[in-house]
Amino acid sequence: MQNLNKNYWIVGKHAVKEALNNTQREKIRFCLAKDVIFKHNIKNLTSEILSREQISNIIGNSISHQGIALQVKPLKKVNIIEFLKKTKNKKNIIIVLDQITDVQNIGAIIRSAQAFSANAIICQEKNSPKENTLLSRAAAGALEFIPIIYVKNISQTLKLLKENNYWSIGLDGKSKYSLKDISKNNNNFFDNNIAVVMGSEGKGIRNLVTKNCDMCCKINIKDTIDSLNVSVALAIALYEITRSQKF
Amino acid sequence: MQNLNKNYWIVGKHAVKEALNNTQREKIRFCLAKDVIFKHNIKNLTSEILSREQISNIIGNSISHQGIALQVKPLKKVNIIEFLKKTKNKKNIIIVLDQITDVQNIGAIIRSAQAFSANAIICQEKNSPKENTLLSRAAAGALEFIPIIYVKNISQTLKLLKENNYWSIGLDGKSKYSLKDISKNNNNFFDNNIAVVMGSEGKGIRNLVTKNCDMCCKINIKDTIDSLNVSVALAIALYEITRSQKF
Repeated sequence: MQNLNKNYWIVGKHAVKEALNNTQREKIRFCLAKDVIFKHNIKNLTSEILSREQISNIIGNSISHQGIALQVKPLKKVNIIEFLKKTKNKKNIIIVLDQITDVQNIGAIIRSAQAFSANAIICQEKNSPKENTLLSRAAAGALEFIPIIYVKNISQTLKLLKENNYWSIGLDGKSKYSLKDISKNNNNFFDNNIAVVMGSEGKGIRNLVTKNCDMCCKINIKDTIDSLNVSVALAIALYEITRSQKF
Repeated sequence: MQNLNKNYWIVGKHAVKEALNNTQREKIRFCLAKDVIFKHNIKNLTSEILSREQISNIIGNSISHQGIALQVKPLKKVNIIEFLKKTKNKKNIIIVLDQITDVQNIGAIIRSAQAFSANAIICQEKNSPKENTLLSRAAAGALEFIPIIYVKNISQTLKLLKENNYWSIGLDGKSKYSLKDISKNNNNFFDNNIAVVMGSEGKGIRNLVTKNCDMCCKINIKDTIDSLNVSVALAIALYEITRSQKF
């Protein structure tokens, strides 16, 4: 298993700003390019003023860092049982990712999750990328707001969510029903606790996981198209689920 | 101006498959990795069987090519006047990109455009990326279906679209009205010809372009968030516009 305690670099203005503001985020080292103006009021955190090339060398990654890089420890692990206990009096939206491994997509998913007020993202411990530079860059700061909960088994977790009054909806391009059908035909259905289950592009949701979903639905698209990008599909699902709400 | 006639490599299974099937696409050279099984019936196009490393060297790009690469000429330029003449008896959705330069985002936009049956994408000739390897990879084959029309001036083009019975809607996070409001309060409004105008992330749509939009609206998201990713926002807009249709 990948070491969750491994330090890594958060780069880019948005992501670094949110990480600095997050009191739960342990900060180690802060590098700023000479030409970048960026103020913070974190005690005991000195800015090292460097050239952009020096920053690239220190982070050891070719990613675009916008002249700003913060070395951090990963956030404290969140346990699913504790999360459900803490949030049981709220109306929640949880996103469940079944074997999605692309960090760009996961980053984009975290960003949309924050935009549409989702409460957590669940991933399988095995084979899922952990917090890292690319993922945090793609999430553009949203990683500081949305907990990623790693679980051993997705199917078992869906059963646990059911016991905790969640309805799980699997996004499946082959489904007979559309997301809009669910919204239109089941009055106020999306006022329940909802878990949206997403599979990887190409493979989709695994069979056993599908069986543990309460229902499956698709997004209506042209039938000559294989599928939408997974982060785009998720954003549309969150849009439809929250369509009747005002933030 | 970037040379539109410059050959480039299309890589990846999806993108190459669609480019091979596109009779309008001029094919030059076709490389396949030894371990990849891929059949085509294009006359006079020999497959060069190579190692993956050799393919990477030939395309001269670190992009993931999945062992399949097709060198092509860019598609024939489409003129806006001709396009409008040809499509005047159809109901159309056109996407107008104001100064969006990120090829990943434009690729994702082309993919969503195809999924939701949009008819064309309009970009400003100056400062917009032209067809290239990264863009076609991100579009995953959709570049063969959706014409990209380059124009000199976006504001003038919006006037031209108006003359051709299009309603232009600018996506603007600061707007008072939401996309859903337009959908709910204007019966069958989206049955008109629609031009969706998108600005770049951060900067948004330029003032003069906004003035030439018939209306502006936002997507309701949490107000602590700056904005959605531009390709995600566009996909949601297309979803809402086509929500009442079945494909």
